[in-house]
Amino acid sequence: MSEKQTNTDIEPIGWVRAPFNEKFAVPRQPSLAPSVKSQIQVQPPYGVPEAFAGLEEFSHIWIWFRFHQNLDRGWKAQVRPPRLGGNKKIGVFATRSSFRPNGFGMSVVPLLGINAEKDGVILIVSGLDLVDGTPVYDIKPYVPYVDAIPEANGAFAGASPELITVRFSIEAETQLQTLCNNPQLLRAQVTEILAQDPRPAYRKQAKTDPNHYGTAFADMNFRWQVVEQEIVVTEVIKR
Amino acid sequence: MSEKQTNTDIEPIGWVRAPFNEKFAVPRQPSLAPSVKSQIQVQPPYGVPEAFAGLEEFSHIWIWFRFHQNLDRGWKAQVRPPRLGGNKKIGVFATRSSFRPNGFGMSVVPLLGINAEKDGVILIVSGLDLVDGTPVYDIKPYVPYVDAIPEANGAFAGASPELITVRFSIEAETQLQTLCNNPQLLRAQVTEILAQDPRPAYRKQAKTDPNHYGTAFADMNFRWQVVEQEIVVTEVIKR
Repeated sequence: MSEKQTNTDIEPIGWVRAPFNEKFAVPRQPSLAPSVKSQIQVQPPYGVPEAFAGLEEFSHIWIWFRFHQNLDRGWKAQVRPPRLGGNKKIGVFATRSSFRPNGFGMSVVPLLGINAEKDGVILIVSGLDLVDGTPVYDIKPYVPYVDAIPEANGAFAGASPELITVRFSIEAETQLQTLCNNPQLLRAQVTEILAQDPRPAYRKQAKTDPNHYGTAFADMNFRWQVVEQEIVVTEVIKR
Repeated sequence: MSEKQTNTDIEPIGWVRAPFNEKFAVPRQPSLAPSVKSQIQVQPPYGVPEAFAGLEEFSHIWIWFRFHQNLDRGWKAQVRPPRLGGNKKIGVFATRSSFRPNGFGMSVVPLLGINAEKDGVILIVSGLDLVDGTPVYDIKPYVPYVDAIPEANGAFAGASPELITVRFSIEAETQLQTLCNNPQLLRAQVTEILAQDPRPAYRKQAKTDPNHYGTAFADMNFRWQVVEQEIVVTEVIKR
């Protein structure tokens, strides 16, 4: 139950299993899509029940991961945060951008359950903002007396992003009802995800946007466009 | 300004410069010794002013580090948290213990200033709970709308640890006045550090504790003992 480790090598303790199959439309921060459930699969030697004993008493956990899809692209000294409209550059260390040295990210999410299975331990969480297959390097309990500083100044990220109205066309609603086992839940999830307006910042600033967009979620594709500052889901297709 | 990185290799972006020279008496969480100032020295290529532009607008930052003094000792599936009296074992992932896979820790602290110097960027912070020489792997802004969850359930770590009264003997006070440039500040810092009672849990539970302890801080050694449930600093020595 103990292992030597060198100073520079690290190893994933587990992996994210999530209904997000692509980065586009993954929420940019945790808790923005609370209806979405994800799993963290922790394999042995780390994924053993005794290593998680007591964690079930905490309501929230930190998940430490790497932005694996961007690692090969290296880091950038400056980035353009979507929250600043996508045209102002600031230092990467002043952001939560993925283009950072060592490529680590962290998210705090509600812990819904812990399952001990034959081949590891599975943590069930909600609102996780990570794509399926993300490598996880640590799990820590959220300790409010040290981690919660509600009076901190969040500068340009001082408040939740504004949301946009999302509606389903009659055709899309019919397809949703026909194709899905749980259309109510899926509609709620997709509404939360799209309400953040996943378009690039320069598109959001355009007066009109004639583009058609597609978002893969779970085993479905959702086609949508922007009509009079609202997102309209026009088509639901099984993948 | 961009670098490829492999999937398993990581590299420190900088190092902690702190008046804590040894782990004993380093606060177990940030903010418990707010009078203590530390520096994060970030060297090039990461320690360039443009990579930190905008960070000065945030009041708090996350510091990601490794518990480098424990890395060679590997991880343990279960640990005995001091907060549980040191005799109850729980899973390492239910704690912030250093004996964890990959050996990472995180601390959130107030950011007091950012200095651009010839050989890198220096962040000045207060209340950091890290020993001098700790390697740092990431700096992130604290974003209260995602990071602050004051209503979270912190289980056994639900509240700040209880503090113990600290006083200086007349001899120690005289030595402090004679040997130190800023005795008021140093007395405040040492009082904050010792108020957490850095003794091992089994010692705290003993009815009486005849031991003499020593704590190195800045360039001084502080000798102390416990008298009637109070810590008495008995001697201050220049190292």
